Amino acid sequence: MHAGHGHLGGRVMSVLKGMRVVEGSAFVAVPLAGMTLAQMGAEVIRFDRLGGGLDAGRWPLAPNGESLFWAGMNKGKKSIALDMKSPQGRELITRIITAPGEDAGLFLTNLRVRGWMDHETLSQHRPDLVMVTLTGDRHGRPQVDYTVNPALGIPHMTGPADSDAPVAHALPAWDLIAGNMCVSALLAAERHRLRGHGGQEVEIALKDVAAATLGHLGMIGDVTLNTENRGKSGNALYGAYGQDFVCADGRRVMVIGLTDRQWRGICKATGTVEAMTALEQRLGVSLAEEGNRWRFRDDITAILKPWFAQRRVPDFEAAFNDAGLTWSEFRSVREAVELDPDLSTENPIFSEVMQPGIGRFSVPSHPASFGAAERVDARPAPTLGQHTEEILSNVAGCSSTEIAQLFDAGIVQSPSFAKPRNAA
Amino acid sequence: MHAGHGHLGGRVMSVLKGMRVVEGSAFVAVPLAGMTLAQMGAEVIRFDRLGGGLDAGRWPLAPNGESLFWAGMNKGKKSIALDMKSPQGRELITRIITAPGEDAGLFLTNLRVRGWMDHETLSQHRPDLVMVTLTGDRHGRPQVDYTVNPALGIPHMTGPADSDAPVAHALPAWDLIAGNMCVSALLAAERHRLRGHGGQEVEIALKDVAAATLGHLGMIGDVTLNTENRGKSGNALYGAYGQDFVCADGRRVMVIGLTDRQWRGICKATGTVEAMTALEQRLGVSLAEEGNRWRFRDDITAILKPWFAQRRVPDFEAAFNDAGLTWSEFRSVREAVELDPDLSTENPIFSEVMQPGIGRFSVPSHPASFGAAERVDARPAPTLGQHTEEILSNVAGCSSTEIAQLFDAGIVQSPSFAKPRNAA
Repeated sequence: MHAGHGHLGGRVMSVLKGMRVVEGSAFVAVPLAGMTLAQMGAEVIRFDRLGGGLDAGRWPLAPNGESLFWAGMNKGKKSIALDMKSPQGRELITRIITAPGEDAGLFLTNLRVRGWMDHETLSQHRPDLVMVTLTGDRHGRPQVDYTVNPALGIPHMTGPADSDAPVAHALPAWDLIAGNMCVSALLAAERHRLRGHGGQEVEIALKDVAAATLGHLGMIGDVTLNTENRGKSGNALYGAYGQDFVCADGRRVMVIGLTDRQWRGICKATGTVEAMTALEQRLGVSLAEEGNRWRFRDDITAILKPWFAQRRVPDFEAAFNDAGLTWSEFRSVREAVELDPDLSTENPIFSEVMQPGIGRFSVPSHPASFGAAERVDARPAPTLGQHTEEILSNVAGCSSTEIAQLFDAGIVQSPSFAKPRNAA
Repeated sequence: MHAGHGHLGGRVMSVLKGMRVVEGSAFVAVPLAGMTLAQMGAEVIRFDRLGGGLDAGRWPLAPNGESLFWAGMNKGKKSIALDMKSPQGRELITRIITAPGEDAGLFLTNLRVRGWMDHETLSQHRPDLVMVTLTGDRHGRPQVDYTVNPALGIPHMTGPADSDAPVAHALPAWDLIAGNMCVSALLAAERHRLRGHGGQEVEIALKDVAAATLGHLGMIGDVTLNTENRGKSGNALYGAYGQDFVCADGRRVMVIGLTDRQWRGICKATGTVEAMTALEQRLGVSLAEEGNRWRFRDDITAILKPWFAQRRVPDFEAAFNDAGLTWSEFRSVREAVELDPDLSTENPIFSEVMQPGIGRFSVPSHPASFGAAERVDARPAPTLGQHTEEILSNVAGCSSTEIAQLFDAGIVQSPSFAKPRNAA
């Protein structure tokens, strides 16, 4: 914490303190966007239909069947559950989204609801509304990470070089990227509003995020200008040197020779400087050139492989670290959680949190450390409808009589008034 | 474009118009962050050492050896090249980073330079500086996407179920997520400054981004509370139903049954409603439950596989689209670029751009469409040092005499004054 910054009457505030965002969402990208804003200090209200939205039971699950995915994606949010099919439920959502406040009127969604919940209608209630909508593709067709990724070609460059079969990624990378982009798009549009340019709708298509990213990485130029396709290359680092090796103890490590410094470090640490020089002479190329390290990676690997095969990780671990090499060990998620202090509460971004109905485990806050703003500690996710009454009262401006009527009529729900879950 | 919003004297402005960001970077995350800001309208100045930084020659390359990666990651930026080892070069960089302007004083970096380029020193020149620094891990050790990913366990859940070998992703997903997070962190910190809370340093570690994301996805809770590990499941969608199938024409499709609606859609479109009902009776479970679709995915796939094996993609393509199914075809990047209109200039986010020294190809702008702000069309990347003179004059405030002296002394470089590239 840097003294003298970010204080307001002596109090250090979280970086987005005071902002209010409403989220109508399901799955990865938009829930992640809302949570990221909550983890920077915004008040984030997620609304769901009675019984929960499409991701209410999303895997992974806790032993008791509760969704660990919901718990992960909704940390620190407030939850309201209402009948989104009833006129009263719709009116309440409209009031919540368009409620007054200079730092409110911010709405994130991937629910495709036309008529009452589109930007045109909502902005009649609050003309300076900023609404960020994530769609599947630009035609309005449904797309998920699992369809966008195959359509754009990444699985054909993933996996062992000796197999033709495409390999999809297990990490929903496009969703995660799109979710983070929803955050920056919302902040950019809110900045625009703050400077007097009014509200607006921001539309982002998941497929466009992926397509643009391929372009940014040079992949579109590559297939346009080159005749050869980038194929599969196993776990090798593309374009320079980086390879996985199995060690004498059966453990597998990844070793990086992307920069010249890293490359020289590997050769020195493994005592292969002379062997690499001999290889350069045999091939008539300089391996100081990153492209040559890529082109002749198999020859390089043939030299390094026996070195690793004869050694256990503890035999070289300290020397590699002392030499500042860029390397890591392959671990399962379980091994990482059990063995790596960076995934434990030794790392200030993690804290042990009791998630009601599920149990206690290590939970991350926002990975950024803001030097002049307070860290928002990880907080549990709400249970569905946990804040229904509070939101109806404080945001929608309902009286306690109105709130009681809404519960009685089954328009809203909270854990204490829970109804059976609706079919999807 | 929505009429009436975002105009200033009748002119629609791009969403970050007027903002100036300085970037000292290499590789994926921070260059992507700077470019994303440039694609929303910010003026982004990237500085590099003479001859270019560590990513100046990064693959993929154009046929003439120029870096398509540089071209992709630096679109629309301004470039200045200077001798970062000389006191004069360092002073110029300091002046550029800390130059006056209400919407300036924003610095993005992943260069680990202590002493003259750390936040403490730079903020002496401009106390309200906002500096976002991306590091490898929280200990300051070097980490790249290729080391973070194996360390946290994703490769052990990627690839064919019948193989134990970990499979690394080909997409630098963690870099891409971290880059997008640098954008939102910078915008959040700038918002904080705009509200009178001063500048600050924001530190983000690549490994922390990945570790936090595992937690958000529920994976840390999963291994903490459950005894069984999530293993590899090929291209199957995790936790519900989604599978790839090879068709009669050898083409491969991905079909999604994540939501109940999607699942019923697949069964109906493939005429397998009765077969699935029989399966439910045999297993004694309901496949309306997403977890059961996941647990019994192999049984479901056994029913669907012959249907796809007997049909070519054109046989069912129109029917699947008419039914609103969520599905896609596996393509290579080349096929996607050649066949998919969403990767062509039919999609407003793409335009044909002539990248000097490389050639003409389809280039993406920012994937978001801001309803009340002008789209920033894709612009070529600068050549190294292309804007050296302009930046020295307009930002560093150098006179033309000083600029001439700096070129003569070899402190700065531009394409017209190019020197041979330094060794890395």
